[in-house]
Amino acid sequence: MAKKPKTAITPVRSDNYPEWYQQVIKAADLAENSSVRGCMVIKPWGYGIWENIRTHFDAIIKKRGVQNAYFPLLIPKSYLEKEAEHVDGFAKECAVVTHHRLEDDGAGGLKPAGELAEPFVIRPTSETIIGESFSNWVQSYRDLPLKINQWANVMRWEMRPRLFLRTSEFLWQEGHTVHATAECAATEASEMLEIYANFAENMLALPVIMGEKTPDERFPGAKHTYTIEAMMQDGKALQAGTSHDLGQNFAIASDIKFSNQDGHVVHAHTTSWGISTRLIGGIIMAHGDDDGMIVPPKVAAQQVVIIPAVHDEADREAIMEKCLGLKLVLETISFDNIMISAVIDDRDEVTSTKSWNWIKKGIPVRVEIGKREIEGNQVFFKRRDESPREKHIMPEDEFLGSIADILLSIQNNLLERAKSYRAQKMKKIDSLDEIFNYFKSEDAGFANIPHSLWDEGLSEKMKTDFSVSPRCLPIIDGELSDRLIIARSY
Amino acid sequence: MAKKPKTAITPVRSDNYPEWYQQVIKAADLAENSSVRGCMVIKPWGYGIWENIRTHFDAIIKKRGVQNAYFPLLIPKSYLEKEAEHVDGFAKECAVVTHHRLEDDGAGGLKPAGELAEPFVIRPTSETIIGESFSNWVQSYRDLPLKINQWANVMRWEMRPRLFLRTSEFLWQEGHTVHATAECAATEASEMLEIYANFAENMLALPVIMGEKTPDERFPGAKHTYTIEAMMQDGKALQAGTSHDLGQNFAIASDIKFSNQDGHVVHAHTTSWGISTRLIGGIIMAHGDDDGMIVPPKVAAQQVVIIPAVHDEADREAIMEKCLGLKLVLETISFDNIMISAVIDDRDEVTSTKSWNWIKKGIPVRVEIGKREIEGNQVFFKRRDESPREKHIMPEDEFLGSIADILLSIQNNLLERAKSYRAQKMKKIDSLDEIFNYFKSEDAGFANIPHSLWDEGLSEKMKTDFSVSPRCLPIIDGELSDRLIIARSY
Repeated sequence: MAKKPKTAITPVRSDNYPEWYQQVIKAADLAENSSVRGCMVIKPWGYGIWENIRTHFDAIIKKRGVQNAYFPLLIPKSYLEKEAEHVDGFAKECAVVTHHRLEDDGAGGLKPAGELAEPFVIRPTSETIIGESFSNWVQSYRDLPLKINQWANVMRWEMRPRLFLRTSEFLWQEGHTVHATAECAATEASEMLEIYANFAENMLALPVIMGEKTPDERFPGAKHTYTIEAMMQDGKALQAGTSHDLGQNFAIASDIKFSNQDGHVVHAHTTSWGISTRLIGGIIMAHGDDDGMIVPPKVAAQQVVIIPAVHDEADREAIMEKCLGLKLVLETISFDNIMISAVIDDRDEVTSTKSWNWIKKGIPVRVEIGKREIEGNQVFFKRRDESPREKHIMPEDEFLGSIADILLSIQNNLLERAKSYRAQKMKKIDSLDEIFNYFKSEDAGFANIPHSLWDEGLSEKMKTDFSVSPRCLPIIDGELSDRLIIARSY
Repeated sequence: MAKKPKTAITPVRSDNYPEWYQQVIKAADLAENSSVRGCMVIKPWGYGIWENIRTHFDAIIKKRGVQNAYFPLLIPKSYLEKEAEHVDGFAKECAVVTHHRLEDDGAGGLKPAGELAEPFVIRPTSETIIGESFSNWVQSYRDLPLKINQWANVMRWEMRPRLFLRTSEFLWQEGHTVHATAECAATEASEMLEIYANFAENMLALPVIMGEKTPDERFPGAKHTYTIEAMMQDGKALQAGTSHDLGQNFAIASDIKFSNQDGHVVHAHTTSWGISTRLIGGIIMAHGDDDGMIVPPKVAAQQVVIIPAVHDEADREAIMEKCLGLKLVLETISFDNIMISAVIDDRDEVTSTKSWNWIKKGIPVRVEIGKREIEGNQVFFKRRDESPREKHIMPEDEFLGSIADILLSIQNNLLERAKSYRAQKMKKIDSLDEIFNYFKSEDAGFANIPHSLWDEGLSEKMKTDFSVSPRCLPIIDGELSDRLIIARSY
C-alpha cells in the first residue's frame, strides 16, 4: 500500500475540513481568537492581506469618484428604528452601550455608571447614521451623485463565531451613494457588483458567480441585493461581497431630499456595498492545501522569502550580503503594477524548519541562498503552487528577469485551479428527486435549478434537512437568470 | 481710517479664536458634529489629510520593522482593572457595553436585552487587550523586540467635546513594543518621540518641542511619558503626540514574560506611542488664517485645483481639454517623493466663487485656465500662502518645471512662519512675579521657567487662576532640561 505523503496540516482537508481551516489559520499565523467572545486578533501576516485588499480596492473606487470619509461608531437606538426591516434585521445581534463610565462597586471592583438617556448600538452597518449626514449634504441635483466610502470596524453579535468568516467584530469597507433617479442607483449597484467580481477574480484569484439574492436573503431594507458567491474546496458557498440597491427606503427613513432640475423637492435613491475581512477566510478555503495557506501573490504582504542557508560560519557574511542584494533588486521589480516585497528570514533556525514555516504561511516564492548559489551565481527557489519537492535552479539574471512572470503564473494557476474545481462541483439539475439526491452527499457543491422549483415547497425541506439555501439568481451578460443557485454556505 | 480688509472667515482670529476655529472647519468642509454627542463626522477633505498622515507615517514605522495588526474593539472590564493607575485614568470616561441585543419594550420601541455577564468598555487605548496577546506571543528572547502597530478608532467619553481636538471617538495609531531590557524600551520610546517630532515638522510643517511630561501628566501606568508640544496661533499648546516608556508595569499586569539568554524567565519591558486625528486640529490652528484653512502640501488630499474660466461657451471645449491635459501632466510630477494630485473644479459656478471655496479649504495652489491662458500657452495661478490678490503668470512649461519647487516652498513657508511665531511667543522667565504677570495676558504663549519654581507652590495658583499647566521638561540634544515649559493648552 502506498504511504500517504506527510503533510504540514493535521487533519487534512478530506478528513475534517472545518478543523483543517482552523489549523491552517494557526499554522500560517493569520489570526487568533481573543478572550472577547467572537472578536478576533488579526495577526500581521493576516492583516497584511487586508492592507493589500484595502490599498488596491481603494484605488479602484477613487478612480470612480468615490471619496473616503468617517462616521461615528455609535448609532442612537432611535436611528436604527427608522427603517422597520432594517431594525428587525440587526436588533437581535448588536452590542449596546448603556453607560459612559465605570465607578467603584464598593466591593473592590467597578460597575457601569452614568446611564445614558438613550442607548447606542455599535454600528452593525452605517446606513442610518450616514443617512443623517447625507440629509444635510444633499440639497440640489447638483450635489448628486454623492459617492462616499468608509473603511471601518463593525459589530454584529455572533452566536457561532468563526475566525474571519463570522466574527462579532470585523473590518470592512462600506460604500454609500446617493442618486437622483432609480435608474442611476440601479446602475451604481450593478457596476459595483461587477467591480467586486473583477476584484475577487483578478486580485484574490477567486472565481465568483454574480447574481441577485432572493427576497428572503436581501439586506434588511434593500430593494435589490446583489452578491458575488464563491465556492470553497468543500463545495460550500461563501458570500464574498454584496451591493444593495436601496431604492428610496433609506432616503425616506433619513429624509434625503433634493430639488430636481424642475425645482421640485423629491426623495433621492441610495445604494450601499461592502466587502470585509471575511474575504481572507475565502482565500484560505479556496486556495489552501494540506500544507497550509497559499496567498495569491497580488495580496501577499510579501511575495518572496529569502532564506540564507549557512552550513559553514565562514560563508555567513557572503551569503547574507547576497541575500540582501537580492532583496534590494527584487523590490525594484513590479508585476501587474504591484511592487514586489521580499523578506529575509535570518532567524536562528535550520533551513528546513524555516522553509516549512513559510510553506504553511503560503508565501508565493521561497528562495534559498547558500554557498553553492553564490559560487554558481544562481538562485534556488520553490513555488508554493507546486509540490514542496519541486525545485528550480536558475542563473540569477534569469531569475530576476522572470520573477514577475513567475508570480503572475502562480496567481493565474490559483485562479484556474479554483475555476476547474468549481466546474466539477457545479451541477445543473431540473428535478426534485435529483436535487434531494445531490445534496444527500456532504460533498455536494452548487446546484443550478429552475427558480420555480425552489418556491414550490422545496425551500423548507432543503433548509431544515440539508442546510441548503438559495445563493443567487445568476446575472449573465447583464440579464437575470430564471434559474437559482443553491448550496450549503458559510 | 483704513478699511479693514474683507476676510472669508467671521470672526477673524484676533476677535474670537475659538469661534474662528469652528468656522474654519465649517468653511473648509473638514468635519462636522454628529447627533452622537462628542462624535464627529470627518468629511472627505478632512479625511484626506488623515489618509496622508496614515500613509506616510505607516511607511516610516514599517521601515523600522513595525508590523500592523488588529485587536478587539471591546475590552473586558477585568482587563482594565489589571493596572491600578491605568483603570483610574480611564474609568471615568469610557463607553460601557452591557447588552448584546435590543428587544421589543412593549411600547412600540426597543430596549437593551441579553445582559452580558461581564461588561465591556470600548477601547480608550489598547495596552491591556494587546498585552493579553503579547503574553502568548512572547516566549523567548528570540521573539524580542516585538513591534506592533494598530490603526484604529478609540473612545473616551468627553464632557466638553471639540472637533478634532477632543472628541469622544477619534482615529489614531497606537504602537506597542516589547523589549528584553529597560534600556531597549527606553531607547524605543525616545526614538519614537524623535520620529514624531520629525514627522510633525517635515510633513505637517508643525514645529514642536520634544520633552518629558511631569509625573502628574503621565499616561496612566507609564514610567515615563514623552511628548511633542506644538504652539497654536493663540499661544496655547497642543500635545501632538506621545510616547510612553511603560517599564514593567504592563508586562507585570498582563504577564508578558520570556526566557532570557541565561534561561531565566523574566518580565519584559514595554512601550506604547500614538498620534491621532487631533493633529488635524493642530494643522488648522497652526497654519489657518482669516480666509480659512491652509493645508500643508505634503498632507493635502490634492495640491492643485484647476478652475476652468469659461466666459464664452464657444471656448468651453478647448478650455476643458487644456485643464484635463494639465491635470494629467501634473499627476506625473512628484515633490519630495509625493505624487501631485490635482482636481478640476468644473462645477456650474462663477470662477470667483469657486476660487474662494478653495481658498477656504486651503488647497496649496489654485490654477485658472481661460481663453487667454490657452492663447498665451501660459498658466495663471495663486498660492495659498500668499495674499488672494497676489497672482502669478508663467509659461506652461515653466510652471510644470517649477510646480514641485512651488509646493516645497509653500510647505517651507508654513514651517518658517510657525517657527517665527513660536519664537515671538516663547519667553524665558526666572521669577514668580514675572510668571504671574506674563500669564495675566490672555495672549500669553509658552513660558520657560526653572522646574523648581513650579513645584514650590506655583502649580495650584497657575492651574486654577490661569488654566496654565506644565507641558514638558524639554529634551535638548538627548538631555533632559532642568527647566519646564508651561502654557495654556488644548
